[in-house]
Amino acid sequence: MSIERRHTNQRMSQVVSHAGLVYLAGQVASGAPGESVAAQTEDILARIDELLAEAGSDKATILTANVWLTDIGTFDEFNAVWDAWVPAGSAPVRACVEAKLAAPRYTVEVMVTAALKV
Amino acid sequence: MSIERRHTNQRMSQVVSHAGLVYLAGQVASGAPGESVAAQTEDILARIDELLAEAGSDKATILTANVWLTDIGTFDEFNAVWDAWVPAGSAPVRACVEAKLAAPRYTVEVMVTAALKV
Amino acid sequence: MSIERRHTNQRMSQVVSHAGLVYLAGQVASGAPGESVAAQTEDILARIDELLAEAGSDKATILTANVWLTDIGTFDEFNAVWDAWVPAGSAPVRACVEAKLAAPRYTVEVMVTAALKV
Repeated sequence: MSIERRHTNQRMSQVVSHAGLVYLAGQVASGAPGESVAAQTEDILARIDELLAEAGSDKATILTANVWLTDIGTFDEFNAVWDAWVPAGSAPVRACVEAKLAAPRYTVEVMVTAALKV
Repeated sequence: MSIERRHTNQRMSQVVSHAGLVYLAGQVASGAPGESVAAQTEDILARIDELLAEAGSDKATILTANVWLTDIGTFDEFNAVWDAWVPAGSAPVRACVEAKLAAPRYTVEVMVTAALKV
Repeated sequence: MSIERRHTNQRMSQVVSHAGLVYLAGQVASGAPGESVAAQTEDILARIDELLAEAGSDKATILTANVWLTDIGTFDEFNAVWDAWVPAGSAPVRACVEAKLAAPRYTVEVMVTAALKV
């Protein structure tokens, strides 16, 4: 069974597909650095949509999500964007905790695993 | 291959089953908010038992566990309850780190993935 | 489908194999406690090599990695060792965040999931 990697450099791949699952790297808001949590979340979720599409999947088949916020006080601001993005009836399992991220300009990180289209 | 979700709202599911695996959301002690780490852990592990049973699995088939404690100084208190709950010879892989959780009344969160009964 | 566990005690297994995947516990530098982040990372990655080999896999098939650093300021020091260790063209998806670990002598933790050899 093969392993298919996309957007791969010496450190990490952004997408790895194997055995019917699509694993995405933790996504930060590279298109909205330093912006509000809401803006960063929108940037991240749009990138997740793109990466899943490249792998032949989409947000309706996300199985799991891990979310890190540098300030858990932004939980509601994050969720307002997240809740609007999740397809009705298709929400994944999730854990959301506070953690400092790789650079101060990023205050949100989201890592998901999805099934290939079912 | 289907995706089966349980206890689903617009934000997350508590259980997602797919391709022989059962994914649980990060569980916090909704039945013991603000109580001791030991009491919160007991509440969480009882809920994990219930959710796995609903999905047709049980704690003897848990493959992975992620644990977050708001104070890593409670590591031993958490482990005393955890170690007593894990079936002998069936312990999963695990990582346990410190992180603030969604609300101050919760000081323990546990997220597991299990196999369907084998 | 069976579950195969290695280095199992009452708390956790270091390796769980199931359905073509190999899950490793979060590894800390038990061979280099209190040493530099670079030294701890080398110790951890050597242990991951050993555990994957026992399970019949290797670093070229790692699908996902989660990394925790007690000081995100050591991100570059960690990555210098990590980047040199990852086989060219085979990097997994990854998330790396800051978190306190189980004991102050450990400042790096790495948890990976790999495919059985493909």
